[in-house]
Formats: sequence, structure tokens, C-alpha cells
Amino acid sequence: MSKKFVYLFSEGKGSMRDLLGGKGANLAEMTNLGMPVPQGFTITTEACTQYYIDDEVINDDIRNEIMQYIGELEQITGKKFGDLNNPLLVSVRSGSRASMPGMMDTILNLGLNDEVTASFAKKTSNPRFAYDSYRRFIQMYSDVVMETGKSYFEKLIDEMKEKRGVHLDTDLDADDLKELSMQFKAEYKNKIGSDFPSDPVEQLFGAIKAVFRSWDNPRAVYYRRMNDIPSSWGTAVNVQSMVFGNMGDTSGTGVAFSRNPATGEAKLYGEFLMNAQGEDVVAGIRTPKTIDELKAINPEVYDEFYKIVYTLEKHYKDMQDMEFTIEEGKLYMLQTRNGKRTAAAALKIATDLVDEGMIDEERAVAMIDPKQLDALLHPQFETEALKAAKPIGAGLPASPGAASGQVVFTAETAAEWGKAGSSVILVRLETSPEDIEGMNYAKGILTARGGMTSHAAVVARGMGTCCVSGCGELKIDEKGKTFTLGEKKFREGDYISLDGSTGNIYGEAIATMDATISGDFDRLMHWADGLRTMKVRTNADTPFDAAQGRKFGAEGIGLCRTEHMFFEAGRIAAVREMIVSNTVEQRKTALAKLLPMQRGDFEGIYEAMEGLPVTIRFLDPPLHEFLPTDEDDIVALANEMKLPVEELKSIIVSLHEFNPMMGHRGCRLTVSYPEIAEMQTRAVIEAAINVKKRNPDWELVPEIMIPLVGEVKEFVYVKNIVVETADSIIKESGIDLKYLVGTMIEVPRACLTADKIAAEADFFSFGTNDLTQMTFAFSRDDAGSFLGAYYDKKIYENDPFARLDQEGVGQLVTMAVEKGTSAKPDIKLGICGEHGGDPSSVEFCHDAGLNYVSCSPFRVPIARLAAAQAVIKAKKR
Amino acid sequence: MSKKFVYLFSEGKGSMRDLLGGKGANLAEMTNLGMPVPQGFTITTEACTQYYIDDEVINDDIRNEIMQYIGELEQITGKKFGDLNNPLLVSVRSGSRASMPGMMDTILNLGLNDEVTASFAKKTSNPRFAYDSYRRFIQMYSDVVMETGKSYFEKLIDEMKEKRGVHLDTDLDADDLKELSMQFKAEYKNKIGSDFPSDPVEQLFGAIKAVFRSWDNPRAVYYRRMNDIPSSWGTAVNVQSMVFGNMGDTSGTGVAFSRNPATGEAKLYGEFLMNAQGEDVVAGIRTPKTIDELKAINPEVYDEFYKIVYTLEKHYKDMQDMEFTIEEGKLYMLQTRNGKRTAAAALKIATDLVDEGMIDEERAVAMIDPKQLDALLHPQFETEALKAAKPIGAGLPASPGAASGQVVFTAETAAEWGKAGSSVILVRLETSPEDIEGMNYAKGILTARGGMTSHAAVVARGMGTCCVSGCGELKIDEKGKTFTLGEKKFREGDYISLDGSTGNIYGEAIATMDATISGDFDRLMHWADGLRTMKVRTNADTPFDAAQGRKFGAEGIGLCRTEHMFFEAGRIAAVREMIVSNTVEQRKTALAKLLPMQRGDFEGIYEAMEGLPVTIRFLDPPLHEFLPTDEDDIVALANEMKLPVEELKSIIVSLHEFNPMMGHRGCRLTVSYPEIAEMQTRAVIEAAINVKKRNPDWELVPEIMIPLVGEVKEFVYVKNIVVETADSIIKESGIDLKYLVGTMIEVPRACLTADKIAAEADFFSFGTNDLTQMTFAFSRDDAGSFLGAYYDKKIYENDPFARLDQEGVGQLVTMAVEKGTSAKPDIKLGICGEHGGDPSSVEFCHDAGLNYVSCSPFRVPIARLAAAQAVIKAKKR
Repeated sequence: MSKKFVYLFSEGKGSMRDLLGGKGANLAEMTNLGMPVPQGFTITTEACTQYYIDDEVINDDIRNEIMQYIGELEQITGKKFGDLNNPLLVSVRSGSRASMPGMMDTILNLGLNDEVTASFAKKTSNPRFAYDSYRRFIQMYSDVVMETGKSYFEKLIDEMKEKRGVHLDTDLDADDLKELSMQFKAEYKNKIGSDFPSDPVEQLFGAIKAVFRSWDNPRAVYYRRMNDIPSSWGTAVNVQSMVFGNMGDTSGTGVAFSRNPATGEAKLYGEFLMNAQGEDVVAGIRTPKTIDELKAINPEVYDEFYKIVYTLEKHYKDMQDMEFTIEEGKLYMLQTRNGKRTAAAALKIATDLVDEGMIDEERAVAMIDPKQLDALLHPQFETEALKAAKPIGAGLPASPGAASGQVVFTAETAAEWGKAGSSVILVRLETSPEDIEGMNYAKGILTARGGMTSHAAVVARGMGTCCVSGCGELKIDEKGKTFTLGEKKFREGDYISLDGSTGNIYGEAIATMDATISGDFDRLMHWADGLRTMKVRTNADTPFDAAQGRKFGAEGIGLCRTEHMFFEAGRIAAVREMIVSNTVEQRKTALAKLLPMQRGDFEGIYEAMEGLPVTIRFLDPPLHEFLPTDEDDIVALANEMKLPVEELKSIIVSLHEFNPMMGHRGCRLTVSYPEIAEMQTRAVIEAAINVKKRNPDWELVPEIMIPLVGEVKEFVYVKNIVVETADSIIKESGIDLKYLVGTMIEVPRACLTADKIAAEADFFSFGTNDLTQMTFAFSRDDAGSFLGAYYDKKIYENDPFARLDQEGVGQLVTMAVEKGTSAKPDIKLGICGEHGGDPSSVEFCHDAGLNYVSCSPFRVPIARLAAAQAVIKAKKR
Repeated sequence: MSKKFVYLFSEGKGSMRDLLGGKGANLAEMTNLGMPVPQGFTITTEACTQYYIDDEVINDDIRNEIMQYIGELEQITGKKFGDLNNPLLVSVRSGSRASMPGMMDTILNLGLNDEVTASFAKKTSNPRFAYDSYRRFIQMYSDVVMETGKSYFEKLIDEMKEKRGVHLDTDLDADDLKELSMQFKAEYKNKIGSDFPSDPVEQLFGAIKAVFRSWDNPRAVYYRRMNDIPSSWGTAVNVQSMVFGNMGDTSGTGVAFSRNPATGEAKLYGEFLMNAQGEDVVAGIRTPKTIDELKAINPEVYDEFYKIVYTLEKHYKDMQDMEFTIEEGKLYMLQTRNGKRTAAAALKIATDLVDEGMIDEERAVAMIDPKQLDALLHPQFETEALKAAKPIGAGLPASPGAASGQVVFTAETAAEWGKAGSSVILVRLETSPEDIEGMNYAKGILTARGGMTSHAAVVARGMGTCCVSGCGELKIDEKGKTFTLGEKKFREGDYISLDGSTGNIYGEAIATMDATISGDFDRLMHWADGLRTMKVRTNADTPFDAAQGRKFGAEGIGLCRTEHMFFEAGRIAAVREMIVSNTVEQRKTALAKLLPMQRGDFEGIYEAMEGLPVTIRFLDPPLHEFLPTDEDDIVALANEMKLPVEELKSIIVSLHEFNPMMGHRGCRLTVSYPEIAEMQTRAVIEAAINVKKRNPDWELVPEIMIPLVGEVKEFVYVKNIVVETADSIIKESGIDLKYLVGTMIEVPRACLTADKIAAEADFFSFGTNDLTQMTFAFSRDDAGSFLGAYYDKKIYENDPFARLDQEGVGQLVTMAVEKGTSAKPDIKLGICGEHGGDPSSVEFCHDAGLNYVSCSPFRVPIARLAAAQAVIKAKKR
């Protein structure tokens, strides 16, 4: 049997969303509920997919099926395409599975031509209405279907108004509009080279193709990438018989929400205009009335509408966003869908619906988009202030939130001005670990280079600081302390603003408002916690981060990067001394200076976590990252170290690496310099003993994590050093302390040999940042230079560093889980890459059988919610 | 049942090599053949493994079993440990599965102490012999078992000779030797702190432990790594009752080969000394006699020996290397083994054995070590000249062969002097693609940086040029044109010599001799070709390389790197013009200049290959590799390009990458700049058409290979450009030309998604260099800085870039083969990484089901032989 590509509204139903798109499914559902819906049919998303398979041609099968359904629609409505007595006029709208702004605009009044309009004018006794409809149709068709743009049409209208000496479109009369429609047609022929199509069937197929094409326009592609919508879904096309809100004073059109989409308040909310078509409501020329005013104008229609609204809300068990039209006193429903809402509204609506008994807690949890929570956790621009501002450029939305402040070009200045109470925005080519203190004092960070997982991005997300990264157009003169963007030059102290959620950059100060978390948030998180089976930990390098993570509900630390502590003032000297050591003894002396500092840090972190698990990763980055690169800094360091400058330089040169990502780092440092792991073990264990002495009831079990393991013997070598050191300290202390030794799984070979590694390791923590780099052979610091072309050409639709590549990287993760648990069924499994805070990746981790995810403090609530949703989705399968 | 750890020689057999080691198995075999072997027992390799499991202790079970076998040996020989009338004296020798020089020295005469020696002196009526044996034992035991070194003992002997006024050890009499043995014992106590052990059992266990320990001494570990011997094998220990060649003029000892090990000549070859123990033969104090002279001294023993030699050769069907002792006129066989031989001898022996009907061709093929062929294909030092020379340093043996010539520091000088007829050695910090012409003119290449797969190493191997890379001690002053090594400074024009097979560097000229290939070589290769099922191709970038590869038997080109052609003078300008292009049009203009050059190259390569398959890889390296880095060169290029210097510099900066290996390269270049692939397709196809017009009978099917694919959509994007371009050219030409479009499999994600890629690709060629980098997260240019520590700590035993890591990388290869053939059963599968010329990796490729391997021209014979051996080994399983 051949596929069915077209459905009457009465043939479909609400559950056929994948096939009919959201709009089509809901029109079918409303039809089935007996609501007043202008009838029509939906061309399926599969027809769209077929259109692309057939090289952008509507094949004969589909064409014939559409023709057959035109016939059916003509029978249902008693109207006919091109009929002068009773012409069928239709609207054509796109409608995909997921709501997608940025796709095709609606085409109204399709079916009109010179003859039909003339007779329509006579039949409705409203020539002005008929010709207004006609000129609108020509204009929309030209713009949307033939992509002529609309400016020239607007110009013709303006000229006509000038000629007539009037100000408003509505002041033009039927003759004016008729003349305009003739001018529009001439303009069409001028632009396109052929006559405006007068055959309604030709018009219809043009419009259908335009909808199919719009699925692939750049805005739609971009939107899909941002929202994880696969291009294979395609869009449906809805062909619906027209009803007219502009047939006179008893007609009208409007939009309404069953609850307030900004606040969530449980009250009908919306606006409408009498004697208007849809576009007039949003055009802003006439001021629409609030929905309450309809009660006075037409109480019967209001009551009918009100009843329908709450029938729909109960039916869909969610806040509805609806379009309606009143044609000569009769109400028609044109659309309903779950309404978009602010994050605050989403929480209020979900908890209200539970309190009203309409949904259960599980459904409430499932309703919230985890990504939306970001807006609640970070400062945002004040809505009105933002409206007045225009971005002067954009980079990558690297860390959410809004920030406004004075430009500084060095971390030192950021720290200095920040301590003095100024709001500063740190602008850098790229940040480096040395900048950490200044980044901490900045309200926002802007970089010219680096992607979503660059140093600036990762650190900023960890701190909850707004960051826009990789703005290629930004020309920075760090020495001269200026930058140029959008042809404007900015100096130190000038004000700019950043939106880390959109990547927008503004050349002025914009007022921000702080994040506010309501009681609804806590209730919802509590419900989510009850549902989820995965634990959620946080990545935290300092007691401050740890406390932040706990505030957001983290149940432990999944990644504590010990090297971040190395950059603090007073420590970096000892670190550098260790690096330039020529002998083991020298190195041990330097490490001995670091020991009390690291031990102190770990004590602080254990205290903050009050006995919850803490995973500490041993030194990971290549050593050259700790050395200066600047001539001045090198000379200063040489003096400090009492080394000849040339010798220091030659050490720096000898540490240079062609591909540092794959160089001398991670556990390779320990294999070369076992004394580093000895010192770090000592710090971890001694700190735990000290804290345990003070808090004997805490179940404190430090988890030592060895990075970059690719071979079990490598792991065992390091583990032996750890165990030997730890056991002797514990024995000496007389304290009963347990600890775990596990590994990051971030090298493909570790996944391939996970059974052997698991036999020796207490836990695996997937480091999916590096695993993604190796699996793709993508350097995340360099991928920016080519990923753009990959998105443009639709080779990749997502940034694999932001969303876990389930097909490739995911296969390695699954393999490692299977091999690992086959060797050690109770091995602890977690993830500590950036993906731990991405909802779709969290779902993958749940399905893969991980025990926990770990992410930046500010992403903890997102992960908690996503982990709960993963349980709900898994149940449904 | 518990494991048996000890075997009498009469309990073992030749096939038990894994358990008894080579020496033990052959002693057992000779015993079973009824040959005169002093009896004894072998402690198994498993006992050695157990010793390491038990933390270097011989456990009670093994100890008891050894004690039991001492008893058995006492019964067999009728002698007893410590018995004054008839003492059991034994030798203790190591013996692993594979022959391993560099392991423990032999201990002779074990069982002697003061009392036993005294009575032994009386019983043999030869006190000089008895005390000479005793002092030798104390010396050997102290040195080998207790690791005291032997210099102090030598000093005592010298003092004694001085005191006695004699010159030779043999001039010392019994009393002298007795006194010496007392002095030795005192020295032992002084060094070790306890008395020399007088209990033979204690002596024996000390010696056994020393053998076990020797398995892990640095020389043995190094040898194992060089020869792919796993540390898990362990060594056996052979305990054999002593016979004495030094009991008088009717006694003697010697070594012999059943054929000449240097030439392969089929004639008994060896030497012996009467009245001597083993070490005297090699000590060089007395000149040994040739084996023929034994006929005159003792014709019966000679005849008996001769008969045994050829019985053994027939039995083992291979040339034998034997040790024997004559004790008072009676012949004893102490050892037999397949003899080591030169490459030339190996070929002659193998073909002779076939001609003699002793073995078949398959066995002849299996006998040759493929790695040995290198010596036949490259120049070597003259043996005598080399003996006189001493290395002043060493690097990595990056490309085999020997070279001698004058030092130059730039590729330009190398080319200039080379053209003028001088032999030059190019000395560089590291080479870059720009150096290619100079490298071609150099006899040898020496670099301070880079590993076995660095640019210098890979290119040198391709050219068959000797190369020593990564000599860290080399201090080069490229500007001043000097280098320092081993405290000596060398200037441009000074002579040095390199051995690319050992890595040795000599500070003088050493005479070399050219490679010579005999008829035996061709016969053997012909037999190998008859056996193997895998094809062998060569990697070749130029018509010259292609011809070289064919000369060595290549059946096609598996990898033609198009970018190597870009560096030639007259081309690089156009390449750079392409890179700095701001628009597609500018880029196309530059590419149009490259087109005729590339087309010409491909025509030359097709002509050289006469219709055999040619795989051409599209542009792979990141573009910045083509731009200069030197200030002067940048200025020159800017002038040439008519660009402001600052603009060119900013282009170079913008192309800088953090991790270029994982950056903007491979097919990513085509995704960004499709016009590059268009040009290259045009060159490949137009060249094929031109050549086919001239040679209509050739079956010329160009194979276009897309590098660095990680996702099928990426492959399809590039393939579409290739197919569109190619098909239109072919159509226009009217020539019937087929071509293939396939991909390198070198990114882990390509292996993980190989089924999807195979559905679109005509072939896979495994690029195991990059695949190894990504699987391990090892940058091959940087791995040198940490791999040393990994070898030392026995985490890795092999360089994964030289020998395919079958456990990790191999798993990905196998996965890709399985997935690929599941989607396309007849997909062509090959390998073109450096591993294609490594015998063990070739065997892996055969077992994995690949259709061909491809390697440097000079490795083609090795791969042909290894591929045949893989078939033979697979048959045996």
C-alpha cells in the first residue's frame, strides 16, 4: 500500500503530531472535539521529506493526492476554486513537529484572481474588503512564495496614500485598493518575468513548495541547530478554508492565552481587533483591545470562546495559545497550541496545574524545559532597557546571563577595579588560567577567540559569570587598551553590555536585574528529585564553588580540578619552581611548598560538602601552561627563580608542544614525575584525616581521579603510588579512612579496554570533552575555524562539545559502560564533561546506566530536572 | 592438580619451547635423539612468572620441586652435591622462548667449595684444574649472582701475575690459583658482608634467582622492546651437570655452525680450543683452531660430531649453532639452536635447503625474518671500517641504512652540494615539507627533534634515505652553522656518518658499501608472492618513488600525498597565493595555476605504474604548513604577493592552531573551500584521460581518497563535488574512464560509524598513524617527551607508531572492517599508515581481512614476505 500524504482535519488526531506537525494535529483534534474550525487538510511532514528526496520536486503521487483533497474540501465547504459564485479561498501555513519561529509566514486569501475578486466584491457587497484581500494576497504571495521582498509594495501603498492625501491604509477605498492590486501584479511581472498566477491550483502548489523550501532557509536551519531539531523531521503544510475577520464590524480576529504567559497568572489573557485580518493585530497601527472587552462587544461569542479555551486547556492539560476569528458574528478557532512562556511563568503554571488537580507532579516536571531554568539563575537585562538597545555585534553564547560594565583589558585591572566596587567586563583575545582571579571579579567576559568550551567559557560557566566568546569581528589592541567592534572604538573604562544567553554585545550600559528564585522552583525541583535515579554532582575547584553547587542541590563534587588552585598568587611561584627543577630532589622541595596549600584547599572543600562525595582529579594540563609567555614575565620569573634568562627560555622552549592536547599531560605527568602524585595524594588524604577528626560522623570518602588513562598498566602504575602513599598516611594517623581510586575515561583507548581498566579502578568518570575531541579529531580550541562551514552545509547540526554526539562518542561511552560493568558490576559510573549539564546528554547518560552526572554549579538544577525527565521518558518507551 | 615447574631433560621435548625455553627444549630434544648430553633439568618459564607474581620470591612449592629434581639428577649422574668423593657440579643458564642476548651470563662449576675443591683436586689428580675451576666459579657467582662486578677480581689476578712475574693466566699454578680463590672469597665477604656460600643448594638457589632477575634487567627489557617480546613470557633456567673441557690435552670445547652464518655456504664452520672452558674460546687470549683441525687431533670425535651436526640440521631442518665439550676424549653436546645469520646467508640457506629437498618453499619463506631484508636494500658500513669507529652519540633509528658525508645545515645547501656530486648529511632541528628537495639530495638526515614517524623519518623512509631522528643531545646552531655532540663541535663541511638501523652517529667518515640483491632474494620473493593473499602497494608521491616501489614489487600505489608536490620550487608560490586569497575567485585563479602541474604529476605517476591501481589522497595538511615562519621569508613572500607585510602576518596568525593535528585539515579544507577538491579532481581525471588516450589497453582506474572523514555526511559532501566534476570531464572527453571515491579511515568516529560510510565509499584505507594518535591521545611529534618513561616503567613495551597496537587501535580497525563489510561486502580494504611495512602489523592486517597493505618503497619486500608469512601462520592455527 502506498503512503498517505494528505489528511483531512477530520481524519487526523492530536497524537499524529510527527506526521501532521503541531498545528495540523491540533486542528484535527479541535475538529474531533466538535469545535468550530474552518475545515481543510494537512500535507504530511513525510511529503516534505519526499520533496527533498526528489530533489525539490513534488512528485506526481503527492500532487494527485493533493488534487483529490482539494476536491474533498470543495465538497465539504460547498465552495470551489475559481468559482465566481462561491469561490474557495484558503490559507496556507507551515507546521512542524516542534514549534519553529523563523519558518514561513502565512499566506492568506489564496484562490483570488481578477474575476473571483470582482464577483466576491459583488457577492459580499463589500468591494473594499474584496480588493483589500486581493492586494494583501498578491503582496504576501510575491513576498513569501516568490521572495520578491515587500518594500516595493509598501512604497506603492505609500504613493497611493500620498496621491489620495490620506494617512492610514484603512482610509483607502475600494477603487484605490483595486488600482493597487493591478500595480502589484505589474510589479510582480516586472520582478518575476511572468504574469501573476491566476489559477488557484497553480497558486496553491506555489505556496506548498514555498512552505517546503522554508524548512531549509537559514533562519530555520539556525533555529534547529540551537534547539536540537533534526533536519530529517520536515514540515507539514496546512491548507485551510478562509474565514474573514475583516468583513465588517461584526467580524474580528485575535489571539489569547489561557493563562498569562509572562507571569503564569491563571487568568484568560489576550487581545483582538474587530474588522481586521491576523496581521493587523500585530502590525501596531491600531491598538488591539484586551480579551475582556470582547464580553461587551459580543457576549455570546465571548462565552463560547471562554468555554472553548478551558475545554482545550483541560484537554491538553497545559496552558493554551490560540488564534480565533469572528466572521460576521460567528466564532472560528484557527489554532491552538501549548503556549510559550517565561521561565517564571512555566514554574507557576506547572505548580498551579498540580494544585488544581489537572496534572500530577510527574507531568509538571515533564512540562518544564530545563534550558529555560538558566534565565532564573542568572541576571537578565531589564526588559524595557533592552528594548531600547541595539547589539553592535555577537559572539558565541558561552555562559548565560546578562552583564553591563566598564571595559578592562587585563585580569589585573579587572581584579583591581572589581575589588574597588566597579562593574567590569573583561575583554581578551582569549583567557588563560593565569586570568582566573580577574575573571572572578568581572561581571562579564568577552573574548575574540575560543569556542563554547574554551577556557573562558568553561571557567565562566563554572563561576556563573556571563561570557560571550569567539567574537571573530572583535579587533583587540591589548597593548593600546582599545578594541574595535561594529566600526566603533572602545577604550578602557567605556561601558558595554553582554548577553551570554544570546551572544549579543551592546556598546552601552543596560540595566540588569538579579536572578530571583521562587518557591515554585523549589517545589518543582523537589518533585524532580523524587523522580530521578541519577545523582547530580557539581564541578567545583574551590570551597566557594562547592558551596554554590550545594546551594543548587549538588549531591557531591564530580570534578575538582587541582590545577586551578595552582594559579593563585603565592602558589604559582612554587608551581614554576617545581617545573624548572632539574632533579627529583629540587622537584620534591618545590612540591613540599605546595602541599600545605593543596591540603588547605581540600579541607575547605570537604567542609563545604559536609561528607558528600568529592572527586579530586590529579594534575592534568601540560606544564608549559604554568609558565609565562611574555618577554617581561619571563625575565621577572628568571630573576625570581635566580635562573639565567636564557636557561629559563630554553626550558620553556623544551616544553613547547606541537599538539599539547595530546602531549605530556594527565597521568603522563605522574609517570614522568611520580613525586607529583605523591604530593597530591598526601594533600587529599591528610586533609580528609584532619576534617574527619573534626567531624567524626561525616562519611568522608575522597575519590582520587587519574586523568587521561589509556591503558590499564598506566593506571595501575599511578594507582600503586597513590595507594602506597595513602595507606601509610592512614595507618600512621590511626583514623579509619576509606578512599577510592578511579579514572577519567576520556581517551578512546580507555573505552576500548575498559574491561581491563575496570578490574583495577573503583570508578569511571567520563570526560566527554576530551573524548569528543579524540573521537572526532577536533581540537576544541581550533574547531571554530571550520565548524561554521559544517553547519552551513548541514554536515553537523549541533556543536558536539555542547551536545554529546550519541552516534560516535556515545557508542564509545556505551562500550565502556558495558565492558566496565562486565568486569566489575558495581563500578561507579559518572560523567564530568561539559555535557553533564546538557539536557539531551543527561538523558543519554541516564539511558547508558550512569550513576551520576556532574556539571557547573549553575547547571545543577538543569541536570536535576533533565535527570528526572529522562526517567519519565524511559518509562514511556 | 598442581602445575609442574621442573622437567628432566629426558621428560621434555623440542615442542615445549614456550615452557622450557629454547635452550631447555633443545637439550631435551637432543637427549631424546640419544645424543651425548650432560644430563640436567629445566625450571620452567612459568616458574619465572610465578616468581614475579610472588614479589620476587621462589615459593615453597617450586623450591620443593627443585629439591626433588636435584635428587633425581644425583641419582642419574651418581654424583652428589657436596660429596667429597663424587661431587655434583652444575652449570646454570637462562633460556627464554626467544633467543635473547643481553640476559644473564652462564654460571659454571656450581657446587664447588673449599672441601669439595680439595677432594676434586685429589680425585682428578689435577689440582691446577680444580682450583682454576673454583676461582672461576667464585668470580662468576660474585659478578653474575651478587652483581659485584668483576674488575676487582681481575685486579687480584693481575697482582698475582705480577707477583709471580708471569704474563698469562695459564702460567699461574695450582697454589697461585688456590691463593687467588681465597682472596676472591675475602673480597666477596668484603663486598657483600657475608661469607661466600659454601652450601651447593644455597649456591643453586642464588643462581636461579639471578636468572629470574636477569629477565628484568634493563638490557633485557630494551632488547624485548626492540624485538616485540612480551615481558609476560619469562625465562626458564637450565641446571646441567658439568663436563670439563679444561681437564687436560684430551679435553676441549668449541662452537660450530652447520653452515657459514655470514655467507650461508653449506659447509661446517666453527672453532674450538683444547684444554679450555667456554669463556676461553671467546676471550681472545689463545687463538682458537678452526673446526676442520679437530679431524687431525681426534678423528673419532670429529666424525661423531660431524654426524651429530647434520643429524641435528636434518632434524631441525635449519642451520644449527652448537656448543660442545670434549672431556677426556669424550664428546658432549651442550647446546643446539637455529643459528643467527646475516640477511644474505639467510636467503642462501633457505633457498639451498629447498634445493637440497630438506624443506619446501613455504618453510623457506617462513624462515626469513622480514626485518632483516632492510640490510639488503640499503647501503651498509664496511665491516672493517665500522670496527675502527666509535659512535659519539645516538638518536632514533628512523630510516635504515648507513651514510657518510659532509655536514650541511640547510636544505638549499644540501641540494646545491648534492647536485655538485658531494655526499652530504643534512643536520636539522627538525625537517619541514619545504626541505623536501634538499632531503632528496642528502645521503643521510640527522634531526634533534621528532620521533620515528616525524616528518624527517617518514620522508626518509619513503626515499630509502638513511635517517637518525630525535637525538636530544644534539645542540644545533642553525644560524652559526655548527652543531655540538659528545663535546665536539662540527662545522659545515665536516664529515660525519650515520647508521639509520641502529641510530648511531659517528664523528668521522666511514666507508660504506652499496646494497646488493642476489638471485636468492628474487626466488624467495617469488615464493612469497605465490603464498600471500594480500596485495602489497607502495606509498609514492612522485613518478620516481612510484618506479622505485614497482622495482621492489609493489602492485599499485596505496597512498599518493598530493601536498608533497606543492612544495616544489615554482609551485609553492601558487599554493601560497591560494592560501592568502580573500575570495573564491582569487582562490580559483591560484588553483588554476596549480592544475597543469598536478595533472602533469599524476600523468607521470600513472605512466610509471602502467595501469596498476593508484590511490590519490586529496590535500591533507593544515594550510599554515605552506606559509613561511621566518621573518625574512615572510617579508619576501609579502613582496612577491604584493601584500603589506602586516597583512600577511595577520593571515599567518589567523591560521595558527593550538592543536593543528586536530584542526583545519583533511576533508575539512574541502568543506571550507570546495574549489580545492574541484581542482584536484580535475587534475586526477584529466591526467587519467590523457594517459588512457596514449595507452588504451591499460586498466587505469584512479582511486580518489578523502582524508580525515569522521561522518558520512562529510564524506558525501566531498564525494558529490568529486563525482560532479569528474563525470562532466569524462563525459566531455568521450573516454570510458572508471574511478573510485573512497576514504582514509583515521578518525575513531569513522570506525564507529563505518557501516554508514561504507554505504557511500568505494574503499577504506586505514590511516593508522593518525588513528593511533587519536586512539591513544598521543601527538606523535610530542610523544617522545614521555614515551621513554613509559618504556622504563613497562607500561608500553612498543612504540605504537611503529607496531600497530592490536588491543586498542586494532579493535577499531576490526570494528570498521566488520561494520564496513556488513554494509558493503565487497568494499576494498587497505592500510596506508606506516604500519603497512611492519611485519607484525602486516600479519594483523591479513587476519583482519584487508585486501592490501601499502608502505614506503623500501619496505615493499618486507611487506610481501610478511604477508606470505601471515598466510602460513594462519594455516597453522
